[in-house]
Amino acid sequence: MASIVLKRTQQKVTKSTCADTIYNAIKAGYRLLDGAGDYGNEKEAGDGVRRAIADGLVKREDLSQCIVVKQITKMQLKLWGIDYFDLFLVHFPVALKYVDPSHRYPPEWFGDDGKVYTQNTPMHETWGAMEELVDEKLAKNIGLSNCQGSLILDVLRYAKYEPQVLQVELHPYLTQEALVKLCKTFSIAVTAYSSFGPQSYVELGVDKGAPSLLKHDVTSTAAKTHGKTEAQVLLRWATQRGIAVIPKSNDLGRLSANLDCNSFDLSESELAALSALNINLRLNDPADIDGRLAIFA
Amino acid sequence: MASIVLKRTQQKVTKSTCADTIYNAIKAGYRLLDGAGDYGNEKEAGDGVRRAIADGLVKREDLSQCIVVKQITKMQLKLWGIDYFDLFLVHFPVALKYVDPSHRYPPEWFGDDGKVYTQNTPMHETWGAMEELVDEKLAKNIGLSNCQGSLILDVLRYAKYEPQVLQVELHPYLTQEALVKLCKTFSIAVTAYSSFGPQSYVELGVDKGAPSLLKHDVTSTAAKTHGKTEAQVLLRWATQRGIAVIPKSNDLGRLSANLDCNSFDLSESELAALSALNINLRLNDPADIDGRLAIFA
Repeated sequence: MASIVLKRTQQKVTKSTCADTIYNAIKAGYRLLDGAGDYGNEKEAGDGVRRAIADGLVKREDLSQCIVVKQITKMQLKLWGIDYFDLFLVHFPVALKYVDPSHRYPPEWFGDDGKVYTQNTPMHETWGAMEELVDEKLAKNIGLSNCQGSLILDVLRYAKYEPQVLQVELHPYLTQEALVKLCKTFSIAVTAYSSFGPQSYVELGVDKGAPSLLKHDVTSTAAKTHGKTEAQVLLRWATQRGIAVIPKSNDLGRLSANLDCNSFDLSESELAALSALNINLRLNDPADIDGRLAIFA
Repeated sequence: MASIVLKRTQQKVTKSTCADTIYNAIKAGYRLLDGAGDYGNEKEAGDGVRRAIADGLVKREDLSQCIVVKQITKMQLKLWGIDYFDLFLVHFPVALKYVDPSHRYPPEWFGDDGKVYTQNTPMHETWGAMEELVDEKLAKNIGLSNCQGSLILDVLRYAKYEPQVLQVELHPYLTQEALVKLCKTFSIAVTAYSSFGPQSYVELGVDKGAPSLLKHDVTSTAAKTHGKTEAQVLLRWATQRGIAVIPKSNDLGRLSANLDCNSFDLSESELAALSALNINLRLNDPADIDGRLAIFA
């Protein structure tokens, strides 16, 4: 399914253009919208959805709404102007102190004083709350994001409804073979985020030293061979491994190009050459915010 | 505290010599005995302990008994001939189907038919059982082994008694900086196992391709500089990072040498050169037994 992601890390789909971007993405063929309360553009995204439905571009049931948050679901549904989410994910296996939306929404990672406040809500309680969303028909499917294998295995031990999806950072610098294999074993679909690697992080001032994957020789060579863009090669590398992708773009041309990423096949050696770039480079790690959030240690 | 480990992976302290090894280790100055039901030599280890106490070498309260199992504690205490464990660990964050000890003890990883049978016991229930051991004074301290950061953080969210220790595979090929840092943040002591890296695994037929750390140039150069053995250098690399070690040996000479590993200091550059050998090489991974046990994915 064609998908659009409304933010990657701090880089949001711009609020002022969000409704238009969503509208045009739906027009171009996108059907999966990946958002989060944390992204702060749910109302605007909802405006785009409502306009697309009103103009007859699409029906609600044709859109797949994938939300990466864990609280205040009803409020979020209202902001999006819809009745249910197709997929609702635990954004991070991190429990931060509850912030009432009347005080601040999205709550972000920091308290009023700029410090991080954690809360002792165990994962099994969070997962139980997720399962209630399914029972109340607010979410059709539930899943996890940013989880390691041992935590997924623990969720599977107590789940009434097993996680359907795991969304994780995944690109040729972080290939996650073991995690993808584990998910396959338990029929958990994997969605890759940050498919282009360091690029969007560099734009945010996060530079972990690895050269751009979009300008890498291995990517460029494959792109030239197939007459495709480097972005399309990076997306195809994931989808050919059976992994879904959710590339973000504010640009309609790039949205269309990304949508076209499955129109060619990389060879086994091209896939292997891209995978060989793996250096376990993790760009999105809450431990960089606070040492108590080292969920990938 | 000087420590002796009664097994690493499949390589046990030999049953026939176990009592003598324990007796002699206590005589040589060892005070921490690291065992597990899975090692199948608790009765023999207990014989050595009893003899050492009877001969006046040591008192029970001077010995630190560290057991890496999660069930049948009382039976294990009886086998060891003691009243309490100083430290009791969840050996792996894996729940296997219960095997009654009258049927088979230790239960090992496989059922009668050679297949692996898992059981849906969540970690929070296991940890609750561990906490009861403390309440019943069967264990003075409890901890974890073979756990990733996200699972440790989850345990911390529901723990009545927080884990005091994490025991993990740790050597210059698997330096685990992030995990060690997380443990430091939460005052969890780290114990390293497999300090010598591939060596003992190669003896068991497990060869993951990395050259021996005991014969590595970096180790040997430091050993020569300080007039110590390569084993002592590898142990000191860990202890200088604030990490406890539990090297296993059946040989009294090597037991004594290992005990002496803190009699010198490695330089900053020697420590760094050893740490730079890190290749995230994990030698002990239950995923190698069964894909459903991918606790390190």
